[in-house]
Amino acid sequence: MSHPEGDNQESTGASASTKRRSFIAGLGSLVGVNAVGGATAQGKGNGRGRGRTRNLIVMIPDGSSQTWNTAARYYRAYEEEPESFPRSVADVELAVDRADDVGSVSTHPADPEDTVTDSAAAGTAIAAGQKTYNGAISVDTSGRPVETILERATDAGYAAGLVTTTQITHATPASFAAHVEDRGMQEEIARQYIEEQDLDLLLGGDRSHFRATDRSDGRDLIAAAEDDGFQYVETASELDGVDEGKVLGLFNESGHLDYYLDRERDPENTQPGLPEMVEAAIDLLEKRSDRGFFLMVEGGRIDHAAHGNDPAGIAEQVEYDEALGVAMDYVEDGPGHGRGPSDTMVVNVPDHETGGLVLARDRYQQDWGAIVGQSASQGVLESEVAELSSASAVREYVAEQVGIDDLTDDEVAELLDDPSAIAGNGLISERAQISWGTNNHSATDVPVYAKGQYSEYFAGHRQNSDLLRGFETHLGLR
Amino acid sequence: MSHPEGDNQESTGASASTKRRSFIAGLGSLVGVNAVGGATAQGKGNGRGRGRTRNLIVMIPDGSSQTWNTAARYYRAYEEEPESFPRSVADVELAVDRADDVGSVSTHPADPEDTVTDSAAAGTAIAAGQKTYNGAISVDTSGRPVETILERATDAGYAAGLVTTTQITHATPASFAAHVEDRGMQEEIARQYIEEQDLDLLLGGDRSHFRATDRSDGRDLIAAAEDDGFQYVETASELDGVDEGKVLGLFNESGHLDYYLDRERDPENTQPGLPEMVEAAIDLLEKRSDRGFFLMVEGGRIDHAAHGNDPAGIAEQVEYDEALGVAMDYVEDGPGHGRGPSDTMVVNVPDHETGGLVLARDRYQQDWGAIVGQSASQGVLESEVAELSSASAVREYVAEQVGIDDLTDDEVAELLDDPSAIAGNGLISERAQISWGTNNHSATDVPVYAKGQYSEYFAGHRQNSDLLRGFETHLGLR
Repeated sequence: MSHPEGDNQESTGASASTKRRSFIAGLGSLVGVNAVGGATAQGKGNGRGRGRTRNLIVMIPDGSSQTWNTAARYYRAYEEEPESFPRSVADVELAVDRADDVGSVSTHPADPEDTVTDSAAAGTAIAAGQKTYNGAISVDTSGRPVETILERATDAGYAAGLVTTTQITHATPASFAAHVEDRGMQEEIARQYIEEQDLDLLLGGDRSHFRATDRSDGRDLIAAAEDDGFQYVETASELDGVDEGKVLGLFNESGHLDYYLDRERDPENTQPGLPEMVEAAIDLLEKRSDRGFFLMVEGGRIDHAAHGNDPAGIAEQVEYDEALGVAMDYVEDGPGHGRGPSDTMVVNVPDHETGGLVLARDRYQQDWGAIVGQSASQGVLESEVAELSSASAVREYVAEQVGIDDLTDDEVAELLDDPSAIAGNGLISERAQISWGTNNHSATDVPVYAKGQYSEYFAGHRQNSDLLRGFETHLGLR
Repeated sequence: MSHPEGDNQESTGASASTKRRSFIAGLGSLVGVNAVGGATAQGKGNGRGRGRTRNLIVMIPDGSSQTWNTAARYYRAYEEEPESFPRSVADVELAVDRADDVGSVSTHPADPEDTVTDSAAAGTAIAAGQKTYNGAISVDTSGRPVETILERATDAGYAAGLVTTTQITHATPASFAAHVEDRGMQEEIARQYIEEQDLDLLLGGDRSHFRATDRSDGRDLIAAAEDDGFQYVETASELDGVDEGKVLGLFNESGHLDYYLDRERDPENTQPGLPEMVEAAIDLLEKRSDRGFFLMVEGGRIDHAAHGNDPAGIAEQVEYDEALGVAMDYVEDGPGHGRGPSDTMVVNVPDHETGGLVLARDRYQQDWGAIVGQSASQGVLESEVAELSSASAVREYVAEQVGIDDLTDDEVAELLDDPSAIAGNGLISERAQISWGTNNHSATDVPVYAKGQYSEYFAGHRQNSDLLRGFETHLGLR
C-alpha cells in the first residue's frame, strides 16, 4: 500500500474539514451522543494518521433481508447447476456466509405517524446513530443536523467515499454526507457533497443535480469538484483509467443506474457494475490516507425492483452479493492480513426489507428457471411485450427473453391484454412460485453480517441507531 | 442435581436400548454417516455416565423465521408499552436475542418432486442428518431407517424427552424417535415411542394413538408405558405433581393442543403451556442420568396458524419465545454455570417458514393493537362471529374480542357475509397492516440461534442436515 498523495491531501483535507464544520455550525448546534463540539481538526495524513491503518466498509443492500439472501442462493444454484437443483443449493457460498458474526436490527423510525421506516430515516440511524422521521437526511426530529460516521472519520483524517447504484444524491448515500430536512432536496445534497464535505470518492448515478444547466441555482458542481482536485468520469472505462486521486463518477444523465439485468443485456451500456465500483473504490481510497478509509456502498436497486414486485431484484441481489464478496476479500487479503487481525471491517446491513418477497406460493414445486431466465427488468420487458400483437410473437418473445417455452393460451391472452403481467407479481413470479406481500417497506428485523476485528459487536440484536458504536470502535473514534 | 434413580435406570435403559437396536436392525441396515453398526450398548448411569454431564436442548419453532421473531418483538412492545410504540420495541429482549451465535440453514428436501420441504423431511434432516423426501420420518430416500441424535444419545446413556404443542406423534417429534415411511402412520409412531425407544419423557397432544379403544391393533400403549415405568398424566396440574421418574403426558383426547390464545381464554382448560412443559421436562430429565439429557421441544402451532394466515400465530410465537427463555435460563444458571463453561447447549432452529408473513401491507402505519387485541384463534372467532346476526352484535363482539371499536360499515357487512374474514388475511391483518404470501411452507433460509459451549458451530450457513454434527460434538458422540 502506497500513499503517493499524503502530503498533498493533508492540506486539502484540513481545509475541507474546516469548511464543513463551519457549515454545520451554521445550520444549528449538533445534537445527540455524537456531537463533537470543539473537536480539533485532523487533516488526513497528519500525525494521528501515522498510527495503524483502519478501514471500515459499510455495505447496505437497500430493501434486502434473509429471504433475499436465500433467493440469491437459489438463483446461483439454479444458474450454476440447474440439473441438480435444489441439491445444488448446498454448493453455493454467498458473501454473507463468510461473515464472522451475524446479528439482527430493529428498523422502526422516530416518526410522528409512520411505524415503518423509509431509507432516509434508516440511513440516518445507521450513519449518525439517530432515529428520526421518514424523509430526514441526518437531521434529528427537530431538523437539527447530527454528525455522521463519515464526517467523524474525515475529521479524524480518514479518506471517505460513497458508492451506489442509485442517484448519488439519493437517501441512503446522502444520509452519510449531507444534512437536509427532506430527502427530495437533491440539489442541496449534491452541493453539500462538493462544497461542505471532505470526500475522496463519489460513484453513482445522476449528473443532473451537479450540472449548471440543470440546477436551479446555476452552479456547476462538476467544475467545482474538479477545482477541488476531483477527477470526473462518466463511464466504466474512464473509471478504470483512474489510478489514484479523488474521483467523482456520475454514470448517467439522470435517475438511477440501470438494473443489473438491463445493463448486462445492452452491449452499449457504459455504466460500471457494483463489484467493479467497489474494487475501484477500495483501490483508490487505500491510497488516500495513512489513517485508512471509510466507504459506504449501497446496492440501491434491490429496493426499487422490490417496490414493483419485480423478480429482477433477485439478479440485483446476486450482483450485490458479488460486490460484498469484493469487500470480504479485502478483509481477508488486504492490509493487516498475515500480520495480525485484519485492519478492515465490513458491516453488511439492509436499511429495511421491501416488497415482502416470499419464496412460496401455491405449490411445493418451484421453478427457478423462470427467475434465472428473466433477461431484463419489468419496465423493459413490459414495454417490449406491449409492442407485440400476436400470440405467436408473444410465445417467441417469452421463450427468448424469459426462457419459458410452454406458455398456456391463458398466459398468452393475459400478456396480450396486460403487458405488465410479464413480471411484477405476474407470469414469472407465478411460474417460479414466489409471491409478494406488499409494494412497500416492511417492519421486519434485518440481519447484520460483520467481518473483521470488531465484528463481535454486531452479534445479537440492537437498534439500527446503535450500529454506530461498532463503527466508532473500529475506527478508534470513541 | 440428584440422581435418585440412577441404579434403577441403568437396567431399564440398557434393556430399552437393546430392544430398539434389534428393532432397527429388523427394519433394515442403518445408512449414512450416522450408522453405528455394532456400537456397544450403554445403559444410563453406567460407567460412561460418571463423566461430565452434558445436556442438549433442540428447540424447533415450526414455521417460524426472522419475521416471526420480529412479530413477537412488536407484539410484546405493543402489549407492554402501547403508548410508546414503536419506540418500545427497543425495550424488548427476546430469548433469541440471548443466543451466543447465529447462523442460517437451507431447508430444501431430497424429494423427487417438491423443492420446498415439509416438516417430516426437515425433521429428519435435523434429527438424523439425512435429507429425504417429504413425508419421510427418519428414513432415507430408499425408505431405510437412519439413526437419530436422540437414539445415539440414549444409546450412550443420556436421558431423552420430546415436548410439543402438537400431537406427540406429529412429524417433528416423530422424526427424532421413530422410523416410518409416511408421517401419517401415527399409530406406528406411538408404538415405536413406547415399545422400541428408550424415552424418559413425552409431553404433547393426542391420546387416541395410544389407546386400545382407538387404535386399529387394539394395543393399550398407555398401559404398556406404565408397565415400563412411565407415570401417565393428562393435565397440567397432574404434570406439576410429578417430581421424578419417567413421564408420559398426553393432554387432550385427539389432535393438537389448543392455541395459546384459546388456552388462555378458557378457564376450564387443563393443558400446560409450552414454557411450563419445558420447565417440567428439564426438571425431570436432569434427574434421569449422570450423563445428561437430550430434549427436543417443538412449538408446533406457529406453523398451523401460519397455514391459515391467522395472526394468532404471533401470540403463539410469543409463548414459544418464553419457552425458549426457560431453556436459555438453564444454560446460564443450570449445571456448569459458575464452574466453567455451561454443560447445556440450546439450539433453536425452525424447520421451515410457513405462511409468508410480511410485516407490511398498504401503508407505513401499522396498528399492532389489532394483533395484540385478538383474543382467540381464527377458528374460534369465526365460529362465534357466525352466530351473530346484527350489525350491533358484530360491533360489540369485535370490540370485546379483538379490541377494534371503530368498525366501518363495510367491515361489519363483510363479517356478516363471511365470518372467516375476522382473522386469516382479513380484518385483523388488514387493520394491523400485515400480509401473507402463501398458505404453504416457504423455501426461505431459516435462522439458527445457539447458546452454550459449542454454539460457535452454528454460526455461518449450512444445510439443515449438517446441524447434526454440532449436536454430536456437544454430546461427545463424534
